[in-house]
Amino acid sequence: MDTKKPGDNPWQNARIKPASPRKETGRPERPQRAFRGPVEVSPPPAAAEPPRRPEGAQRRGQELRIYGRNACLAVFARRPDDVRKVYLTEARIGDFKAVLAWCVKHRLGYRVVEAEDLDRLTETQHHEGVCFEVRRHAPLTVAAMLQAIDSSRPALVAWLDGVGNPHNVGAILRSAANFGLQGMILPAQTPELSGAAMRVAEGGAESVPLAYARAGEDVAALLHAAGFKVAGTVPRDGTPLYQTTFPSQLALVLGAEGEGMSKELIRAADLRISVPGTGAVESLNVSASAAVLFGEFWRQHPPR
Amino acid sequence: MDTKKPGDNPWQNARIKPASPRKETGRPERPQRAFRGPVEVSPPPAAAEPPRRPEGAQRRGQELRIYGRNACLAVFARRPDDVRKVYLTEARIGDFKAVLAWCVKHRLGYRVVEAEDLDRLTETQHHEGVCFEVRRHAPLTVAAMLQAIDSSRPALVAWLDGVGNPHNVGAILRSAANFGLQGMILPAQTPELSGAAMRVAEGGAESVPLAYARAGEDVAALLHAAGFKVAGTVPRDGTPLYQTTFPSQLALVLGAEGEGMSKELIRAADLRISVPGTGAVESLNVSASAAVLFGEFWRQHPPR
Repeated sequence: MDTKKPGDNPWQNARIKPASPRKETGRPERPQRAFRGPVEVSPPPAAAEPPRRPEGAQRRGQELRIYGRNACLAVFARRPDDVRKVYLTEARIGDFKAVLAWCVKHRLGYRVVEAEDLDRLTETQHHEGVCFEVRRHAPLTVAAMLQAIDSSRPALVAWLDGVGNPHNVGAILRSAANFGLQGMILPAQTPELSGAAMRVAEGGAESVPLAYARAGEDVAALLHAAGFKVAGTVPRDGTPLYQTTFPSQLALVLGAEGEGMSKELIRAADLRISVPGTGAVESLNVSASAAVLFGEFWRQHPPR
Repeated sequence: MDTKKPGDNPWQNARIKPASPRKETGRPERPQRAFRGPVEVSPPPAAAEPPRRPEGAQRRGQELRIYGRNACLAVFARRPDDVRKVYLTEARIGDFKAVLAWCVKHRLGYRVVEAEDLDRLTETQHHEGVCFEVRRHAPLTVAAMLQAIDSSRPALVAWLDGVGNPHNVGAILRSAANFGLQGMILPAQTPELSGAAMRVAEGGAESVPLAYARAGEDVAALLHAAGFKVAGTVPRDGTPLYQTTFPSQLALVLGAEGEGMSKELIRAADLRISVPGTGAVESLNVSASAAVLFGEFWRQHPPR
């Protein structure tokens, strides 16, 4: 269970083991064979200082801690310059050789730590042996996200309406990345994507542009102006999914767990879709529903 | 995080608050208005005894503790005679009035407890305010499950190959129930469905017949003999899902998280299917993949 609270300072509890003289070089003691070639270059002492508490809210505000093998590898693949620090267990070294070589080359600190250190650092046991501190980016606006979309091709955008569970958000992002969605819109006041959501997304957060609505912004109007239709998903009484012809530029609204999407948004939608079912369960989970809908869009509008 | 270990005895830690004289009747003190009509009948004293430690392994082996609103309601709807005991918080009484009336009528114990009591009883905080003790059933064999399937109609069966995460198993069951699967096959030596899986399934475990393979059993041969084709799902190099025509009697093998299905099963499969994707993430989550595949089967073979 992820018990992360926004105000917590994980560094207060982090007890990274004191660096041995050898470890001051930033290189692990074992296994030596994992470090041939460029990684043998010693990073500068500054890069190997023991982790410190962040210097107040500003620093905390500029960096983000992410974890999980694929989430971290995806950040490194897409935007290595944003990686600020790397913590990993010895068992993870093999997967992250290229990252460590980069760290050495760019004088970036990395540390080989125990799993327990990562437990404290990430405040979860689901870190999969690796944690990055990465630079934050200013979130995209909906307008900027839409502007970047090539309107000559089919495009699907997911618009989350009150989906709060970070595991659902992460699962939706992973499916969105798999099916090549052009963006995901999160409501105004949504807290920044959590480490848990990014881990579950398995790197999907790096390939799907994420936009945050502004308070009071008429997102449906922006979508319409950009040529998108808005489809609401409702548990029942919508057009059955497999009788729906998807427009080629579509924003799909996915509603909150349990309650579904807001009535206001249902009214604003150009079409209302229901994933069919036996009724044996009340509905699909929102992330299962998302996967089914994204897949059907792919089927109707396969990428060229 | 569900930290349940098979050998643990939750009763050892359960500190159900001592029953007040009023509560000895098995009825909650508040809200009185929730108990009109048949529930006013007092259950016999025996039914209202404080929970005791189970009488060793035998009793433990005959009953199963399930939790979660929809999981419990589904058991009550499908097989009320299997409910042995009911624990719920006051806030859940409204949803469970019919259950409590049944308890009173059938002299079954129920107790209104605090959320913290349920935390101990279920060993998780995700109990949603209710826990049932239910009678276990002898698990179905694959042969018995297949025999019960009407071969004159399209039928889809899921065959899980090494899916270990109970949340994935539960999520697959929920989608299976939604899309009307005729059964789910679990490998030999699979531990019984956990409370966590049943909660996540949201009642799906009650409508999808579950069979356990026997050690060494040739499940593919049983499926073939029953007229089923076996389709393996592979991350890549299978027939793209949306170019696949599903046979109307199909067993769909879903592989382990990360590793996918076993090579042996891939060889035994009549067809190999890959859910298409951009490659931005390594694969879909196995439960997202399951939902997409089940949905596509529904699209190709809609129930009459």
